[in-house]
Amino acid sequence: MQTARTTPSRLAKRAHYDADTIHPILDEALFCTVSTVIDGQPFALPTAHARHNDKLYIHGSVGSHFIRAIEHGAPVCITVMLADGLILAKSAFSHSVNYRSVVVFAQAEKVTDEAEKMQALALITDHMVPNRWDDLRPTTDSELRKTTVLAFSLAEASAKVRTGNANDDAADRDLPTWAGVIPLKTVQLPPIPADYNTASLPAYLSA
Amino acid sequence: MQTARTTPSRLAKRAHYDADTIHPILDEALFCTVSTVIDGQPFALPTAHARHNDKLYIHGSVGSHFIRAIEHGAPVCITVMLADGLILAKSAFSHSVNYRSVVVFAQAEKVTDEAEKMQALALITDHMVPNRWDDLRPTTDSELRKTTVLAFSLAEASAKVRTGNANDDAADRDLPTWAGVIPLKTVQLPPIPADYNTASLPAYLSA
Repeated sequence: MQTARTTPSRLAKRAHYDADTIHPILDEALFCTVSTVIDGQPFALPTAHARHNDKLYIHGSVGSHFIRAIEHGAPVCITVMLADGLILAKSAFSHSVNYRSVVVFAQAEKVTDEAEKMQALALITDHMVPNRWDDLRPTTDSELRKTTVLAFSLAEASAKVRTGNANDDAADRDLPTWAGVIPLKTVQLPPIPADYNTASLPAYLSA
Repeated sequence: MQTARTTPSRLAKRAHYDADTIHPILDEALFCTVSTVIDGQPFALPTAHARHNDKLYIHGSVGSHFIRAIEHGAPVCITVMLADGLILAKSAFSHSVNYRSVVVFAQAEKVTDEAEKMQALALITDHMVPNRWDDLRPTTDSELRKTTVLAFSLAEASAKVRTGNANDDAADRDLPTWAGVIPLKTVQLPPIPADYNTASLPAYLSA
């Protein structure tokens, strides 16, 4: 939703407010950065997350000062960035980055319903590795008590996207410097079993 | 430096305060997230950066509200995260991530000296693509005037690092679920020239 906070002061043409743009970015990114304010100071931490409909979930230890501050109402800004390419232009000024980013402004709602809490943990686990949750032993009551799950509304979320290639000023285009894009990609390398592992690699990991 | 703000409330054993740990993480990461506080609200943006000795540089448009707020003294928290692997354990609770992260607390010093400003822009450009700066036409006075460069001291920086493989509780180690690490890596794909490019690919890009 476009609000004063979600309207960028620069490059507003790159801004998007629709779920069709925002949701896939949140779903593709494995990690977000959660920023908050504690005693007037900014604090930010990278963490895992998962999206379900119009909610974003994160989890953390009940002992974490950061999680507790957020849980008790500190305002939150969550950012996600996927870097898709380095844009090399003929001037330093026209260098850029192809990226897809999301910024969410929200306050945490603590998930207290046990079924929703368990579902959120399943979503966070399966966001990292699809189909993982059903392969795990059940989470215990003790583990659940040690974990805080927080939900954030995506009502005040926006995306910013740059695609395409270099875009030099007309006056620079004939300079003898190479211009183009270097695409970036995050890849998963072959799994390495733990030394105590005796199980064979499941189908959902061998793909 | 270890201060109250840089001491994590959880997993303090993963915390580091030495430049030998912190600097390589800042140098390997192409992007950071800059968080600040404006009117009591958290604002965070991903951006490019470069490190030189004990300073971190970022740049932005002189017209950006975010940059202006930071330039005028809003407190800043800068985070960087390199995700090295997904840790798959036999319980959801023991799932984790191999990562190297840095958190910096600082206030911006605006770079007004023209030589330092130009050097910082060269560092940011070459941080993205080594040896790029010397291949570009000189930055103009007009471009320089449109760009704000901010420096941040790394005095109050800390790193957090997790390495190794899965680490299940003893009671879970014999469960029939696969446990291990899925390494993650960000790779650069072959460069794609802009449609107006006629220059051949330079040596520093073909490696």
